[in-house]
Amino acid sequence: MIGGGRGAFIGAVHRIAAAMDQQAELVAGAFSSDATRSRESGADLNLDPSRVYGSYEEMAAAEKDRPASERLDFVVIVTPNHQHFGPAKLFLESGFNVICDKPVTFDLRQAKELRKVVAKSGKIFVLTHNYTGNVMVKQARELVRSGYLGEIRKVVAEYPQGWLSSFLEKDGQKQAAWRTDPKRSGAAGSLGDIGTHAENLAHYITGLEIESLCADLSTFVKGRLLDDDGSILVRYKGGAKGTLFASQIAIGEENNLNIRVYGSKASLEWHQEHPNQLVVKYPDQPRQVWGRGNGYLSPKLQKFTRIPAGHPEGYLEAFGNIYIEAFRAIRAAVTGKKVPKDVDYPTIDDGVYGMAFIETAVKSSSLGAKWVKFPTL
Amino acid sequence: MIGGGRGAFIGAVHRIAAAMDQQAELVAGAFSSDATRSRESGADLNLDPSRVYGSYEEMAAAEKDRPASERLDFVVIVTPNHQHFGPAKLFLESGFNVICDKPVTFDLRQAKELRKVVAKSGKIFVLTHNYTGNVMVKQARELVRSGYLGEIRKVVAEYPQGWLSSFLEKDGQKQAAWRTDPKRSGAAGSLGDIGTHAENLAHYITGLEIESLCADLSTFVKGRLLDDDGSILVRYKGGAKGTLFASQIAIGEENNLNIRVYGSKASLEWHQEHPNQLVVKYPDQPRQVWGRGNGYLSPKLQKFTRIPAGHPEGYLEAFGNIYIEAFRAIRAAVTGKKVPKDVDYPTIDDGVYGMAFIETAVKSSSLGAKWVKFPTL
Amino acid sequence: MIGGGRGAFIGAVHRIAAAMDQQAELVAGAFSSDATRSRESGADLNLDPSRVYGSYEEMAAAEKDRPASERLDFVVIVTPNHQHFGPAKLFLESGFNVICDKPVTFDLRQAKELRKVVAKSGKIFVLTHNYTGNVMVKQARELVRSGYLGEIRKVVAEYPQGWLSSFLEKDGQKQAAWRTDPKRSGAAGSLGDIGTHAENLAHYITGLEIESLCADLSTFVKGRLLDDDGSILVRYKGGAKGTLFASQIAIGEENNLNIRVYGSKASLEWHQEHPNQLVVKYPDQPRQVWGRGNGYLSPKLQKFTRIPAGHPEGYLEAFGNIYIEAFRAIRAAVTGKKVPKDVDYPTIDDGVYGMAFIETAVKSSSLGAKWVKFPTL
Amino acid sequence: MIGGGRGAFIGAVHRIAAAMDQQAELVAGAFSSDATRSRESGADLNLDPSRVYGSYEEMAAAEKDRPASERLDFVVIVTPNHQHFGPAKLFLESGFNVICDKPVTFDLRQAKELRKVVAKSGKIFVLTHNYTGNVMVKQARELVRSGYLGEIRKVVAEYPQGWLSSFLEKDGQKQAAWRTDPKRSGAAGSLGDIGTHAENLAHYITGLEIESLCADLSTFVKGRLLDDDGSILVRYKGGAKGTLFASQIAIGEENNLNIRVYGSKASLEWHQEHPNQLVVKYPDQPRQVWGRGNGYLSPKLQKFTRIPAGHPEGYLEAFGNIYIEAFRAIRAAVTGKKVPKDVDYPTIDDGVYGMAFIETAVKSSSLGAKWVKFPTL
Repeated sequence: MIGGGRGAFIGAVHRIAAAMDQQAELVAGAFSSDATRSRESGADLNLDPSRVYGSYEEMAAAEKDRPASERLDFVVIVTPNHQHFGPAKLFLESGFNVICDKPVTFDLRQAKELRKVVAKSGKIFVLTHNYTGNVMVKQARELVRSGYLGEIRKVVAEYPQGWLSSFLEKDGQKQAAWRTDPKRSGAAGSLGDIGTHAENLAHYITGLEIESLCADLSTFVKGRLLDDDGSILVRYKGGAKGTLFASQIAIGEENNLNIRVYGSKASLEWHQEHPNQLVVKYPDQPRQVWGRGNGYLSPKLQKFTRIPAGHPEGYLEAFGNIYIEAFRAIRAAVTGKKVPKDVDYPTIDDGVYGMAFIETAVKSSSLGAKWVKFPTL
Repeated sequence: MIGGGRGAFIGAVHRIAAAMDQQAELVAGAFSSDATRSRESGADLNLDPSRVYGSYEEMAAAEKDRPASERLDFVVIVTPNHQHFGPAKLFLESGFNVICDKPVTFDLRQAKELRKVVAKSGKIFVLTHNYTGNVMVKQARELVRSGYLGEIRKVVAEYPQGWLSSFLEKDGQKQAAWRTDPKRSGAAGSLGDIGTHAENLAHYITGLEIESLCADLSTFVKGRLLDDDGSILVRYKGGAKGTLFASQIAIGEENNLNIRVYGSKASLEWHQEHPNQLVVKYPDQPRQVWGRGNGYLSPKLQKFTRIPAGHPEGYLEAFGNIYIEAFRAIRAAVTGKKVPKDVDYPTIDDGVYGMAFIETAVKSSSLGAKWVKFPTL
Repeated sequence: MIGGGRGAFIGAVHRIAAAMDQQAELVAGAFSSDATRSRESGADLNLDPSRVYGSYEEMAAAEKDRPASERLDFVVIVTPNHQHFGPAKLFLESGFNVICDKPVTFDLRQAKELRKVVAKSGKIFVLTHNYTGNVMVKQARELVRSGYLGEIRKVVAEYPQGWLSSFLEKDGQKQAAWRTDPKRSGAAGSLGDIGTHAENLAHYITGLEIESLCADLSTFVKGRLLDDDGSILVRYKGGAKGTLFASQIAIGEENNLNIRVYGSKASLEWHQEHPNQLVVKYPDQPRQVWGRGNGYLSPKLQKFTRIPAGHPEGYLEAFGNIYIEAFRAIRAAVTGKKVPKDVDYPTIDDGVYGMAFIETAVKSSSLGAKWVKFPTL
Repeated sequence: MIGGGRGAFIGAVHRIAAAMDQQAELVAGAFSSDATRSRESGADLNLDPSRVYGSYEEMAAAEKDRPASERLDFVVIVTPNHQHFGPAKLFLESGFNVICDKPVTFDLRQAKELRKVVAKSGKIFVLTHNYTGNVMVKQARELVRSGYLGEIRKVVAEYPQGWLSSFLEKDGQKQAAWRTDPKRSGAAGSLGDIGTHAENLAHYITGLEIESLCADLSTFVKGRLLDDDGSILVRYKGGAKGTLFASQIAIGEENNLNIRVYGSKASLEWHQEHPNQLVVKYPDQPRQVWGRGNGYLSPKLQKFTRIPAGHPEGYLEAFGNIYIEAFRAIRAAVTGKKVPKDVDYPTIDDGVYGMAFIETAVKSSSLGAKWVKFPTL
C-alpha cells in the first residue's frame, strides 16, 4: 500500500475492503512521504518492518526483486490526487498490478499518459470508484442496459456534503487541507472530490456519454482556493439531458450521493445513504422498492451479495465488491490465465473520462458557465 | 367563478378551498366558454340559473349592477392561461376583487398590463400560487427571513411529474391538450405549468431575486409543441446560486415538488408530497424534523392550522390558506377598512415576476441555453 | 350541531368536513351546555341567533316543528362521550338523522340501547370513525376483501400519541380534562379515545371479528384516573392473531395510527401520518407503494378522490369522505328514496362493537390481563 | 471454527466480521459433522489440511497440544443451536476462549450448566447477539443509561420476517429445516431464532429485567412443528411495560428488527434495516435523526466507527463490533493481562437470560397465553 498511514482516511477503508472477503493480506507499504511516519504506520499494522518503506520508489525497487513466492500480487495507491501518477506509473512499469484511488491523476494529461503506461505494461489497473460496487447500483445498470427503462431521457445525479461549509482548511484539518489545495487536489475541489463520483455513477448506470456541458462552479467559503459547490447541465450523446449537483457546503448533508434516471418506459432512483434499496417507478403501476439480496434481482449479482435481504450491506461491502472483481482479474493475471471479459470494475478509461469531465467542467465554469464540448479521448 | 365547469380540474379545487373554512359561498359563474356547458355546470353546482352566465362578459355586465346586498365580494378565474387576462381586466375594471389561478397571464406583456389595471382599480388581486399556502413552507420562510439559516448559498428546487411522458394530448385528453398548446398555454409547457411553482416556492421562501439564468428546455415526446422538461441554472442577486428542475416526463413522479435551501448556518428541505414535515439540518447537530401543528412553530402560523400535529393537512388546506388570507384582505376591502399590511398571498407582482421568469427561461433556451439577464420589472 | 363551541376541537373538524364538498350548510346549533357560551359560539359562526340554542333539548323541541323547507336534514353530535347518548336518542326520536362522533356512547349498555332507538326510528345514524374515510384504507379493505392478501394471519394495529405524557389535566387543559375523567370519558382513557380507532381500522380493513382478547392497560402518569397506555393481544375468529397498541404517553408521537395486515399471499401497511400511500408486500416481488389518485386503484374509490395523485389529501378529506357517504344516505332518506345498500360509513353496529371492545379490554385488564371472551352483541 | 461449512450461512458472516478489521486469521476448523464436507470446506477456505478436522472433538484434542506460537486464541462456534453446548464446553475445558453464536444452547438447563463451565474455566465466552454491535444501538443505550430519556415507560420491540411464510422446510431447504426442527432448534422456532434478538436488543438498550410475560405463539403454516409467529406482553421490574412481536410469516418483511423506547422525558426509535439512524423524540421539540459517525455522539463509540457519517455501515460492521470487543478481551487474556471492565459484548449471562426468556414464553403460550413469572437465574 502506498499512502494510508496515520491520520489518513481512505487507506483504512481499502484495507478493510480488501481484507473483508479474506482474499488478500497486506504485507508491505510506503504509508507516508515522511519515512518515520511510514514506519510507525507499518508498525500499527503489524507489518514486518523490513517491508515498510520510507518512499514508494524504495518500495518498488525492493519489492520487484522478491522471489515469486513473496511477490506482491498488487499494489494499492491511496495517496492524495497529485501523488497517484508517480507511483502508479512506477509500479506498473515494475510489473505490478495496481489498484488506485480516484480521481485517477492530477490532471487529464497525466491520465492519458497513464493510460499509455497501463496499455504498455499489460498489467491490471483498477480505479476505485467505489459506489459502483453497490449491488443495487449494479442492478440499476442491468435495468438500464436491458432496456427495462426504455430510452433514457433524463439523469439527475447529486452528491451534496456539508462538511466544508466553514473554512476548515484554515486550521490545517488534514482531510480538508489537501482537498482544497490546488497543488494537491488538482483544478477542482468539490467537483473533483465528489462530483466525479456522481458523474461516474451516472455513466456506469446509463452508459451515456457526455456531448457537452455547462458548469457553474462556486466557492462560497471565503479564502478557499477551489470550488466547494457546483451545478452542471449536461447534454448526452443521443439526446438525453442531465443535471449534476455536487456540493461540500450543503450543511447537514453527510454523503447524500443519489441518482434518478428517467426513461421512456420506467424510471429508477437510488440513494447511497440507503444503498440496499432501489426504487423503480412506472407510468401506470405502483412504484416498487427493490431490495438487495432478493431472488428477483439479476443472478449475476449473487456474487456481490454476502448476506440475506434485509441485512444491510454498506459502504465497505460496496468497496469490497470492487476488490472482489479486481481480485478475480488479478488472480487470473498472476496465474497466467486470461482476465475474464466480464470483470466489473472501473478502469483507466473511466479515469481518463473522469479527468476529462473535471477539465471540461472547470473550463466551462471559467468561461462564465458556457457550454463546452466534451473532448474526444 | 369564471371557468371550472364540467371536466375541469382546478375549478373544483378552488371551490373546495374557498368553502372549507365556511367563509364564502359560490353564487354565480360563467363556467365555460360554451354557454350550454356553463349552464349545465351551474346546475351541477345547484346555483340559481339566473346567475349562471354564458360568458364572463355577460356575467360582469349583469353582476356589477346588483345591489350591495347581493353583490359578489370577489370573482375567481380558473380558465386556461390564455383566458386569464380578459376576465381579470374586465372584473377589476368593473369593481370586483379578483382571485386568479396561475400563471397570471399568457405572457409578460399582459402581466405588466394587468399590473397597471390592478393598480388603477384599487381592487384586491390574488394569484393562487397555492404551494406557498403550506404551513411548513411558511415556517421555512420564517426561518430564512429571521436569519436562522444564515446567508443563503444554494437553492435546489424541483417539480418532477410523469403524467405527460407519452403523447397524451394526441387523443385530446383535456388537461394535456391545453397545457401543451402554445396558443392556450403560452410560450412554455412544463416550465409554465409547474416550473413556475418551483420558482415561486424558492422566491417565497428565500426572497432571493434572480440576477440571470441559463435554461435548457427539452421536448422529449415526439410531436409535442412545448417543452416537457427543463433544467435551469440560476444566479441570484447577492451571490447565491440555484438549480431548478421541472419535468412532466419524469415517469413515476406524481407531484414531487420539493425544495432544499442551504445556508451558512443551517439548511432546510421540504417535500410537497409530505407537506406536514420540514427537515432542518445543522453543521454539528442531528437533523430535525419539524412537524406541522406543534408549539415550537412560529405563532404567526396558528391561523393556518386547522387540526393538531400528526393529523395531516394537504393540498386543499394549503390552497385554503391562500383563501384565508385573500378573504382577510377582501373582507377589509368590502367593509371599507384598510387591507392589513401583513396579508400573505401571492400578488400581481408575483405574477409579473413569474411571467418574466418564463420568458427569460424560454429566451435562454432558444439561444441554446445561454445565460440571460433577468429583466427589470 | 350539538357541542363544538369555543375551545372545542372536533366540532370545527366536523364543520370543515361537512362544508368541504359544498353539500351542507350549518344553520342551527346548541354548541355548549352553557347557554351563553352556546350563543357566543353561534355568533362566531354567523348563525341566525334564533336557531342557536341553550341546550340540545331546546333545540330538538324548536327544530322538529319547522316547516319542511327549513327542516334540518341531519344533526351532528360532537360533545364529549358521556353526552352522546342523550342528544342522539332525542334527535332520532324527534325524526332527525344523526351523525355522531365516536365512541358512540358512554358505555356498552347505552350503545345497545341506542341501537334499538336507531332501529325503531328508521333514521340514518352515522358514527364518525373518520380514519376509515381515507382512500388508501378503503383500498386496503378492497385488497383484503377480494382475497388479494390470501388468508389473513396477523394484524398489528397501533395508535401512539405523546401529548398526555405529563399530568396535563391537572391544569384543566380542556381536551385533556374530559378525556381523563371517568365521568365524562367512560371506563377507558387512551383505549377509548384512540385504541378504538386502531380497533375500528383493523375491523374495517379485515372484517375480522374478535374471539377473545388479553389487555394490559397502564396509567403511567401519577394522579391520572384512566389508562394512558395499553397493549392488547387479540385472537380473531377463524384463527388470525393480532396485537393492538395505543398510548398517549408515547413521547414525540403525534397521531401515529398505523396498521399492518399480514396474509398468506401478500401483506399491507398503512400509516395515518402519510395517508396517501399504501405499502403492499409480496413473498417474492419488490414491495410496492400504492399512491392515492392513481388509475390502478379500485374504480369504486373514484368518488372519494378530489385531487390528482401526488397532491396529498389529509385528515379533513378523509373525514369529508365519511360525510360524502353520510350525505348520500341522508339525501336518499330525505327525498324518500331507499338508502343505497353500498353506502360506506360506520354505523351504530360499529359503535356497539367498539363499546364492547372497550368493555372487554377494561375487564381483561382489571382481571390482571387475563383472556376474556368477546361478548355476543 | 466449528460449523460454518458449505451451505451454511452464519459461518461466513463470522469469518467476514472477524477478518474485517484485520485482527484475526482463520487457521483451523471442524466445519461439518460430516468429515468429508468439513475437509472440502477447509479447502474452500485455503486452510492447511492438517488443521481441518472431521469433528470438533478431534480438533480440540489436536489443537490443545499445539505450542504457544501456533495456539488458537479463540474458537468460534457457529453450528445449529443443539450443537452449541458440546463444543463450547469442550473447548472451554480445553483452555480455549470461545465465541458462540446465539441462542447460547438448546435449552435453559444447558445454558446454566455452560455458565458454570465458563466460570470454572476462567476463559472468555462471547455470545454473538450481533445487533447490539450497531453503533446507534450503543448510542441508544447511552441515552437510556444516562437518564436522557427519563424513566422508561414502554418498550416496543419487533422482529418480523417473511421468509417462512410457506412450508419451505418440506423441501429440505437447509436454513429452514433446522430452524423448524424441535430436535435441532429447541423448544421455539421464530421466538428462538429472532424473538431472542428483539428481547436482547430491548434488554441491552434499556437494562430492564422482565418480571413476567404473557406469550401467544402461533404456527400458521400447516405441518410446521414450531412457532412461526408470536406476540408477547411484558411487564418489567420497576413498572415499565413492553410488547414484543416476532414473526417469520410476515410476508414481505426482510429483517425488520426495530425498537421503540418511550421514556418520561424523551423517546427513541431504531430500525435495523436503516441502522445508521437513530430517531430521538421529545415532548415539545422537533424530532431528531441522529446519524452514525457524527461528532455529537458519545465519544465512547468512536472505536466502533470505521467510516465517516453518511457512509453506511451495515450488518457486518455491527457483527465486527462484537468481534472488536471480543478481541480486546481475548488479547488481554492471551497476553496475561486483566480483561478490561468495560468490554462490551454479550456474555454467558445474556445467554442464560435469553434461554430463560424462550422457556418462559413457551411455557406461557402452552398454558394458553397466561402470565408467567420470569425465573430467578
